[in-house]
Amino acid sequence: MPHVVGLDLGGTKIAGGVVDVSGGLALHREVPTPARDGAEAVLDAAASLVATLVSEAGAQDLVVQGLGIGSAGVIDSDSGVVVSATDAITAWAGTRLTAGLAARTGLPSTAINDVHAHALGESWLGAGADAESILFVGMGTGVGGGFVLRGEGLEGATHTAGHVGHIASPLAYDDGVPLPCTCGGAGHVEAIASGPSIHALFQRLGGTSAADTRAVYRLAVAGDRHALAAVQRGAAAAGQMIGGLANVLDPHVVVVGGGLASAGPLWWDAMQDAARQELLLPLLGLDIVPAELGTTAAIRGAARRALALIDIPEGHHAAAR
Amino acid sequence: MPHVVGLDLGGTKIAGGVVDVSGGLALHREVPTPARDGAEAVLDAAASLVATLVSEAGAQDLVVQGLGIGSAGVIDSDSGVVVSATDAITAWAGTRLTAGLAARTGLPSTAINDVHAHALGESWLGAGADAESILFVGMGTGVGGGFVLRGEGLEGATHTAGHVGHIASPLAYDDGVPLPCTCGGAGHVEAIASGPSIHALFQRLGGTSAADTRAVYRLAVAGDRHALAAVQRGAAAAGQMIGGLANVLDPHVVVVGGGLASAGPLWWDAMQDAARQELLLPLLGLDIVPAELGTTAAIRGAARRALALIDIPEGHHAAAR
Repeated sequence: MPHVVGLDLGGTKIAGGVVDVSGGLALHREVPTPARDGAEAVLDAAASLVATLVSEAGAQDLVVQGLGIGSAGVIDSDSGVVVSATDAITAWAGTRLTAGLAARTGLPSTAINDVHAHALGESWLGAGADAESILFVGMGTGVGGGFVLRGEGLEGATHTAGHVGHIASPLAYDDGVPLPCTCGGAGHVEAIASGPSIHALFQRLGGTSAADTRAVYRLAVAGDRHALAAVQRGAAAAGQMIGGLANVLDPHVVVVGGGLASAGPLWWDAMQDAARQELLLPLLGLDIVPAELGTTAAIRGAARRALALIDIPEGHHAAAR
Repeated sequence: MPHVVGLDLGGTKIAGGVVDVSGGLALHREVPTPARDGAEAVLDAAASLVATLVSEAGAQDLVVQGLGIGSAGVIDSDSGVVVSATDAITAWAGTRLTAGLAARTGLPSTAINDVHAHALGESWLGAGADAESILFVGMGTGVGGGFVLRGEGLEGATHTAGHVGHIASPLAYDDGVPLPCTCGGAGHVEAIASGPSIHALFQRLGGTSAADTRAVYRLAVAGDRHALAAVQRGAAAAGQMIGGLANVLDPHVVVVGGGLASAGPLWWDAMQDAARQELLLPLLGLDIVPAELGTTAAIRGAARRALALIDIPEGHHAAAR
C-alpha cells in the first residue's frame, strides 16, 4: 500500500506523519521551527524531519512515495511558492517550498496553506467526512478557515480564500471605534474573537490577573465577570460570522476547530447560539460540530494532496477519494 | 443552431427570451406576474409567454428545444421544486416548477433561483465572462448574490447559498440596536443597504420629501444631507460586506448589479471605497465591476442551464461552455 508524508509547517513547530491511502497515520513526529534562521534553515529542518519519517517507515516496510506540505502563509499551490506570509517565520514569503523540499527529499511534493490543509483533513476523514461541502473555521491565535466542496478546497484567485477572520463584526467595536486587526484593517472578527483578542478585551475591561487566554477562560468558568464578558463577546462574534457565512455558502456542515472550539461549553454554547440567530429559515437544520482530528488534520489534508501525485495501485483508489 | 427559452420569473413580472448556444438573445418579451392568483395561475402565465416566444421563434425558423427558469424563491434545482419563498407570489413554496412548465410547454425544463441565474448569466456572458470565479452581488429591493466557480453556481446544501444580504453589518445598528431585517433576523446588511432600507433611513434621519429610493438618490446627488447620509451608509454597508466576502471567497472578479449599482458614482464610489478598506493585501488588485447584462442576465443564465439539457451538434459545443 502506498504511503506519503504529510507536514504541518507552522511558526512554532513542524509536525509530520506517514499517511496511507485511507488517511491512517502510521508515524507522527515533530520538531521546533527554526523560525528566526531564515527560509533555508526551515526547509532543512523540514527535510530532516521527512528523512526521519521515511527511515522509520522503511523499518516497518512502508515505502514513502510523496510529500504533502501544509504551510503557514499564502501558498500558491500550483507553483508551490509562498506568495506572502506574516513574520512568524523570517523571510518566508518567496520561498520555493515544493522545489526546495523535493530537491532535499527526492520526493514528488505539493504544498498548500496550513488552514486549507486542516480543512481538507477534516473534510476527508474528520467531522466533515461524507459531507458534500464543509465550512471549516479555526479559532485560535488567529481566526481562519476553508471551504471544501466535493473534496476540493477553495483556494481563490490569489490563493487567499478562507480568511473568515477578516470580515466586519459589529462586536469588534469599542464605543463606536473599530478595534485594530492583525491584518492592518479594523473592526474584523479576528480583532474580537481570536484568543489574544479575548485576552486583550479582558484586560481592557479591567481584568488583570490572567497570564493568557487559557487563564481568562478558567476565570470565566469560575464566574469572573470581566473574563465572562470577554469570552462571551468573542464567542458571539465567531458565531455571528459563522451564521452569516452559512447564509452565503450554505455548507452541508460547519466544522469548528482550534483551541477555543475545544475550550469548553461556555465558549461553544455562546458561539452556537449566536450562529443560530443569524441563520435563514432553510438552514435551521445546519449542523455546527467540533473538529475531530485535532492537530493531525493538517498533516492528513496535506498528505491527501500528495496521494493525488502518485500512482495508486488498483483497489486502493476508492479509499483515496 | 439550437435555441432555448430562458425565463426570469419574479413577483412583479415574468420576462423571457429566446437564447442561442452563444448566449445571443433573439427575442425578449415580458408579462405581469399574476402574483396574487396562486401558483397555477403563475405557471399558466409563464407557459403562455413561452408559447408566444416559441411561436415567434418559429416564424424566424428558430426551433426551441428546452426551457430554463430562473425563479424567485429558494429553488431545488435537482427536483425543480420551490423549496421556500416570500409572499411576493402567493403560495409559491411547494410549486413543482419544472414539472408544471414541462407539462404545459412540452419542453425539457430546468429551474434555479433567479439571483443564481443572474450570477450565471454575468459569469457566462457579462462582466464575469472569462473569469474562473465570480462573486455576483445584486443590490436592489433586496440584497442577494451568487458565487460561480468554473461556470457552476454554488447552490448549497439547501439551495440557499448566496444570501449575501444576511450577514452581520456594523452599520445596521441605530444607537446599538440592530435594525430588523426582512428575514426575521436583525442587524444584517440588507437592513441598511437595500433600496427600501436606504429610503427608511432617510426618513428616520428626518428626511420626508422623497417618494422612493430613486428620489432619495436624486436628493443625495443634489446635496441633501439626510439623503446623502442614507445613501452613503447603505453603500458603505454593501462595500464592507463585499470586501469581507472577497477575503473569504477570493473571487477572480466581483460583479455588482441591481438598481443601486447603476444609480451613479455617489453610491458606486462609496461602496468601492468601503470594500477596498476591508481587503487583505493579496487581494488589493481585485476588480469590482458593474454588471453588464442588466435585466437579461437571469434570462441568459437560466437559458444556459437549459442548453445543458439538450443535444448540441458538433461545432457548437465550444460556445456553450
